[in-house]
Parts: sequence; structure tokens; C-alpha cells
Amino acid sequence: MKRLPDRRIGWLLFGLLVPALVLAGPLHADPIAPVLLGVTGILFFAVLGRFLARRFGQPSVLGELLMGVTLGNVGYWLGLDFIEVLRQGPAIFEMVDQVLTGEPLDQSAVEALGGHEARRILDILHGPGGPALIQVSHTVDIFSRYGVIFMLFLIGLETSIQEMQRVGPASLRVAVVGVIAPFALGFGAARLLMPELSINVDLFVAATLGATSIGITARVLQEMGQLQSPEAHVILGAAVIDDILGLVMLAVVSGIIVSGGFDPGHMLEILLLAALFLWVAFRLGPRFLRFAIRLVRNLDIIEAKMFVSFLFVMILAWLASLAGLSTIVGAFAAGVILHDAYFHHWGDVDRHRYTIRDLIAPLEVVMVPLFFVLMGVQVKLETMADSHVLYMATGLIIAAVLGKFVSGLVAGRGVRQAVIGIGMMPRGEVGLVFASIGQSLGVINDALFSAVVLMVIVTTLLTPPLLKLVLMQRPTGREPGA
Amino acid sequence: MKRLPDRRIGWLLFGLLVPALVLAGPLHADPIAPVLLGVTGILFFAVLGRFLARRFGQPSVLGELLMGVTLGNVGYWLGLDFIEVLRQGPAIFEMVDQVLTGEPLDQSAVEALGGHEARRILDILHGPGGPALIQVSHTVDIFSRYGVIFMLFLIGLETSIQEMQRVGPASLRVAVVGVIAPFALGFGAARLLMPELSINVDLFVAATLGATSIGITARVLQEMGQLQSPEAHVILGAAVIDDILGLVMLAVVSGIIVSGGFDPGHMLEILLLAALFLWVAFRLGPRFLRFAIRLVRNLDIIEAKMFVSFLFVMILAWLASLAGLSTIVGAFAAGVILHDAYFHHWGDVDRHRYTIRDLIAPLEVVMVPLFFVLMGVQVKLETMADSHVLYMATGLIIAAVLGKFVSGLVAGRGVRQAVIGIGMMPRGEVGLVFASIGQSLGVINDALFSAVVLMVIVTTLLTPPLLKLVLMQRPTGREPGA
Repeated sequence: MKRLPDRRIGWLLFGLLVPALVLAGPLHADPIAPVLLGVTGILFFAVLGRFLARRFGQPSVLGELLMGVTLGNVGYWLGLDFIEVLRQGPAIFEMVDQVLTGEPLDQSAVEALGGHEARRILDILHGPGGPALIQVSHTVDIFSRYGVIFMLFLIGLETSIQEMQRVGPASLRVAVVGVIAPFALGFGAARLLMPELSINVDLFVAATLGATSIGITARVLQEMGQLQSPEAHVILGAAVIDDILGLVMLAVVSGIIVSGGFDPGHMLEILLLAALFLWVAFRLGPRFLRFAIRLVRNLDIIEAKMFVSFLFVMILAWLASLAGLSTIVGAFAAGVILHDAYFHHWGDVDRHRYTIRDLIAPLEVVMVPLFFVLMGVQVKLETMADSHVLYMATGLIIAAVLGKFVSGLVAGRGVRQAVIGIGMMPRGEVGLVFASIGQSLGVINDALFSAVVLMVIVTTLLTPPLLKLVLMQRPTGREPGA
Repeated sequence: MKRLPDRRIGWLLFGLLVPALVLAGPLHADPIAPVLLGVTGILFFAVLGRFLARRFGQPSVLGELLMGVTLGNVGYWLGLDFIEVLRQGPAIFEMVDQVLTGEPLDQSAVEALGGHEARRILDILHGPGGPALIQVSHTVDIFSRYGVIFMLFLIGLETSIQEMQRVGPASLRVAVVGVIAPFALGFGAARLLMPELSINVDLFVAATLGATSIGITARVLQEMGQLQSPEAHVILGAAVIDDILGLVMLAVVSGIIVSGGFDPGHMLEILLLAALFLWVAFRLGPRFLRFAIRLVRNLDIIEAKMFVSFLFVMILAWLASLAGLSTIVGAFAAGVILHDAYFHHWGDVDRHRYTIRDLIAPLEVVMVPLFFVLMGVQVKLETMADSHVLYMATGLIIAAVLGKFVSGLVAGRGVRQAVIGIGMMPRGEVGLVFASIGQSLGVINDALFSAVVLMVIVTTLLTPPLLKLVLMQRPTGREPGA
């Protein structure tokens, strides 16, 4: 193709014409166009955050989280509609659900968002493109949830059953201490700092400190090439057990609050369901895989690997959710069970070079950054303006950090206990889920909720740099003791 | 791991416990769980359709479409809520948009769906999990739209600019005849079969016959290894031009209907915007790529390829939509422009084995089958019960098929003209978009809409087997004349 006489003319035209295009407006606008723009915009900022993190030698997840925090809070301050809708995501989806069962919009908005925010969101909805913004926000939310599922699946792929069994006892110790220690410390801190609240509230707040959100730690370990270290295996195992224990804890505490007493039947139900899920996954999963692979044997190996992996991950994630666990526990289990050897029947050796990892990784690469940016965007720094909130939050943070750090000390010999203690720290989205349940039970008020959110933020933001620090100190991996 | 004494015990337990799990209900249900189940269920049926198509030696797209038609119509007949929501997808999304601007739910439902269907959808919404079904349907819709974008991008990747330029004149001839011939035939058929309707209506119906939906043809050509054939290049080029001509046609006819006259200014605007888009894409696209690649140079090559490709596709798709073209035209242009050589700077040669195609294909493999199943599900066979509809539809189908077949005859020497004539046939989603615009302008009534939909279905369903037939007859590809 010929070159333009002067390249600057091209850019000038471009600079004039794109705004002209935007002003002219879409002629037969494809309904997907705003979604493409929104999702791509967020991905762009994720890449920017990752780029900056790399430049300063930090894990990319930290860059993405901080980029999200910046985007969310600067956008909020500037009053950008899109950012506002993203920040209020979960509340808005709740509002949409209510509206779709016939409740009036205004009323649903106030119920889901509270008076002040409701007015803001209603204004946005009545403006041009309001419903499209919610569609974009919903898509980002869905993509980011799929991203976390793929991420945990890929982490599972790098974990073998043998290794999990070997570290089993250590994981169990870490998980149990990692739930009890923060609970005890949290209960003490709550009594001390918030004597005005009832014991029920203290119990609930203490229970929220037990959850571990493994996504962030796993990502940091992965980026530092430490996923095969014994510490990583202990942490991953402990996180799965933690998810179960956390649920038991939540169920017990909720039971006490709702019925005023302790319900051993419900607790037993939770434990049984979790055990049943693990049994189904590890005992019947391999048979299902062999059956499914026989079914698709007339497909291309790439299609077969892709479809079977996708279906298997999603079925286990869904079964996990059915058993009351989080979907990511199911995705992790799917990764542990599945491996390329299942597909050894296909004759087309050349195409075997595409491993399951190669095929699923692209899905993860695009979707996971959306998750971390979205988590950052939903961090509401304005809640920290109140000094009482900061005060409570500080107490909770200390309890949360110390409690989990202590759990590392029982991991036994042969592992770096500091790595485990720090790796168990982030509460991430699990802590937020607990807090929101507390809110809907009416035990956790707005200030307390902000304090819990702050605890989640700080433990989440602290983990990547701290973990990097302790990993850098002992770069060789498998030395005894700590 | 030890084996069970009797495997059947395991299956029995499984058979008893999964329903127990389902009945027990989710404990802290992850909001993503119903989405996982719905999307995975549809993908499962897509794989089944593909499996059956392969077994009978047919293109997999036909298997997916027919599986969708079966699923949609059997599900409708059985009264399955999920299928009903999927079938009414576009109308429901419109309803949600209206509800979110404050309109009452009942009123929005009647406006978007009509009385009878509205009652059915409102019943579903008031039932358990109603809003979740809409969320699932929305996710399937978004994934399938992304899928088509990735599909056209990958097809673009296999097309070079040089080849496009070489077949340019042939594509132009095919496109122009492919719009004019069906228009003339359609107008004649409409006058003949529907003398009771006004000339405006006939003009509009005739205009809907001009659109070509390239997705299905491209897929069949790809599966038969014919994407590099001269016919494929002519068809792809003609489809892009068709998209522009179709829009001009639509604008002219709509203009006549709305204002009662012909508006050359609006027509000029459309042509200018389309030309501007192509200029921006092909002239500035490569510069943007070089700039973006410089920015991400401290990322891993896989991340860099993935992010740059994703951002580039999405930006061009969005710009195309801004210029009034369909997003898939932008995605196709992105594929034509981008190639792996842009990334030659990265030193890590080992990882260069992952081409852009390798990285984007997994996204397509999961998402595209959703698109074809969804298109099939939205085929409403019950509209064909009326004989007058069948009568009109037959006339339109003949005009549509003959008109496009004729366009193949002007493709010139050196190509198989029958392949081009048949390849231009499917109207797919573009025809549906036109029909729905006609409906909202009030020119196309329900019966006529059904006839147009039937025309779209038949041209879409006929293309894969017919194309396969003519391709099989002359398997060697590049022989002169036809």
C-alpha cells in the first residue's frame, strides 16, 4: 500500500473523524457494541496495571488490584456513570432481580442500594445508555467469575492427587488453626473495641475472619514459579478445607443468631454435603471423564480436549455450589483430577502438542485480569473517612493477620512457615460474601460492614508484596525448618 | 486409591445422592452457579449436535443449528421455562431495558413480547429462579456474540490483503448483483403474492432479501478446508461489501417509508462512514498495532499476543458498529490486518510456537457453538402453521435463493460460480435484524415477519448441505470456469 504524503495528515483526520463518528451516533447499532467497549476498556486498564507492576518488579495481580482501586475511586470522585455502576455491581444485580419479579424500580433501588446511592443509580438509568451500562457491568461480572474458575482449574492442573495427600495432615492443621485463631482473636478484638454491640454480632464478625480466598495467593505463587513448592500445596489444601470449615462456622453462627441456639443437624448436613462432593468428584470424576471421552472420540483432539475439559470444570463447579461450597473449589478439584493422559487414544500425535493447559489458558488470560480490576473497583475508599470505622477495622485487621500467620506455625517442618502464614492471609471475595450475608441477617451494620471490607482490602493488598518479600529471602525452595 | 468392592454401589449412591443434593438446595449458592449450568447445558447439546453431524458426514454447524431447532421447539412444546426464555431472548432483553428505565414490568412485557407470550414470561419470572433464567439467557447471548466476533477474526487471519485486493472486482460484482437481483425478484414476488399490501411494504421486504450473513458459509468453507480457495475470498469480500450495500438499501427504503421520499444525504452519510471505517482500519490499524506492541514489550510474548489481539479485534468491532456496519465486519478486518510477524521482536523463540490463531481459537471453540445453537433455538416453527405464511414464505425463499445464485454467475472465470452463488445464500442474523427493524417501523406485520424468518431459516439451513454438495463434486479446487 502507498504511504500518505504526510503521516500527520492521517492522524489529524483520525482525530477529527472519530469524534465526528461518535457524535453522528450508531446507525444500526449492534447491541453488543457497548459491551465490547466496556469490557475492552477494563481489560485495557488491567494491562496497564500489569505493565506498571512489572516495571516496578511487583506481581501483576497487585498492579491490577491497585489499578482497579484507582479507577474505582477516581471514577467515583469524577462522577463517571460507568464506574459507579461497576462499583455498585452486586447491589444493582439484586435490584434487577427484584424489578424482574414485578417490584417497582424505585423501591427496589432503595432496598438494594440505600437511599443516597439509589438516587444516583436511578439518575444513571434514566439517562442515555443507562440500561446498556448495567448490561456491560453484568458481562464484566460474569467474565470475571468465569476467569476465577478457569484460574483455579489451571492451578488444580498443576497439582497432583499424590502431592495433595502427602501434605494432607499439614493442610488440615493449618486450616483448623487458621479458622480458630482468627476467630478467637477477632472475638476478643470485637469485645474490646465494640463493647456496645451484642455478643451475636461479635461472633459473626469473628467468623468472617476465618475465610481464606485462595485466588490471590495462588496467583502470586504462580507468577513467582512457586506453585510446585510444598508451601503452595499446603496452602491450596488448607484453602479447600478452610472453605468447608468456614461454611460450618458461618452456619453455626448464623444458626445461633437466627434460632438463638446451636443446631448440630445443620452443621452435620454441611459436613456431609462437602464430603459427598469430594467423594463424587474424586471417585466418580475419573469414570465420568473416561465415559465422556469415549463419546467424543470422533471429534478432533483439540475439540475433544476443549469440550471435555470445559464441561468437566463447569459440572464440578456447579456440583460444588450445590453442595454449598464455592464454585472455585469445584474448579480446583476438576484440575486436580483431569490430565492430558486421558486423551492418549487419539492418533493425531502432532496435535497432542496442545495440552489442556494450552487450550484453557487463553480463556484465563483474558478473563482473570477483569476479576482483579473489578475487585479493586469495588473497594470503596470513602467508607474509611469515619475514624470509628478505621478504629474497628484496625482491630479486625490485626486479628485477621495474626490469626492466619499463627496458622503457618503449625504447618510442620520442611516448609517455610512464614510463606504459609502469609499465603493464608487474603480474605478476598469470600470474606465479602460472609459480610454481605451478615448484612442481610441484620447483624452487621454499615460501619461494621465497612470495617470488614477494609479488613478484606488490606489483607488482600498486603499479601502480594509480603509474600514476594518472604519468597525472595529464601529463593531456593525446599530447605528444612523455618 | 482403592477400588470400591462393587462399582455399581458407587453409581447407585450417586444416583440417589445427586437428586438429594438438588432437593436440599444450595446452602450459600454462588450467583454464578445457574449461569454455569445453563451455558454448559447448551454447550453440551452443541457438542451432541456436532457429534451427530460428524457421524453423518455433515458440517458441524448444521448439526448445531438443527440441535438448536430441535431443542427450541421440543422445549417449547414441553413448556420448559429455560427454553422459553432463550427463544424470546431479544424481546426479553428489550423488556428488561424498558423496566430499568422505570416502566412497570407488566406493561414492558406486553410491549416487547405481545400479550400471549408476555403472560408466559411473567409467569416464569414470578416462579422460582425466574430472574436467574434471564441472567443465563443474557450470558448465552453475550458469549455467542463474542463467539461470532472471534470466528470472523480467525477467518480474517487466514485472509491476506493481497488476496482480497486481487478478488476485489469480482467481489464487487457479486455483491452488487447479490443485492439487486434478490431485490428485483423479491419485489416481483411480493407484488404477485401479496397484492393486498402497499408498495412500501413490498420495497421493504425486497430489501431484506439482499443481506448476506457470512458466518455460516465461512464456517462450512473452513470445515471443508476451502478458506484459502478463490471462491472463499470472493465470498468474504462480497459479504463485506454486501453489508455496506445492504445498509444503504435499508436506509433508502426506510427513508422512503418514513419521510415519503428519497434522502440522498443520508445515503451519502452511510457510504462515507463505511469508507471512513475501512480507511481507518487499513491505514491506521497497522500503526496502532506497532504502537501497542511497543507499549507491552515488557510482558510475556503470550500475554502480549493475547492482549494486543483482543484489544485490536474489539476496538475495530466497536468502530465498525460506530460506522453503522456490523461488529463482525470489524472483527474480520482486524484478522486481515493482524499477523504474527508483528511480534517478531520478542526473543523467546520457544514460545513463538503459540500463534495468534492458537491463542484466540480456544475462545472461539467454546463460544461459537453457543451461537449456532441459540440461532436454532430462536427458530419458531409454530409460525409456519398458517398456510398463508407458508405461501408467502415460499415466494420469498425462491426469490432469495435465485437472486443470490445469480450473483455467483458474475464472479468471472477461474472460480466455481455455483460455490459463490450458494455461499452468498444464508441471510442469518442480518436478515433477522432487517425484519425486526421493519417490524418496529410498522411496515412488516406478524405474518410477513414469520415469512421473512422462514426465508432466513431455509436459506441458512440449505446452505451447508448444498455447499458441501458442490464442493464435493469438484474437490480439486482451482480449475478454470464453471
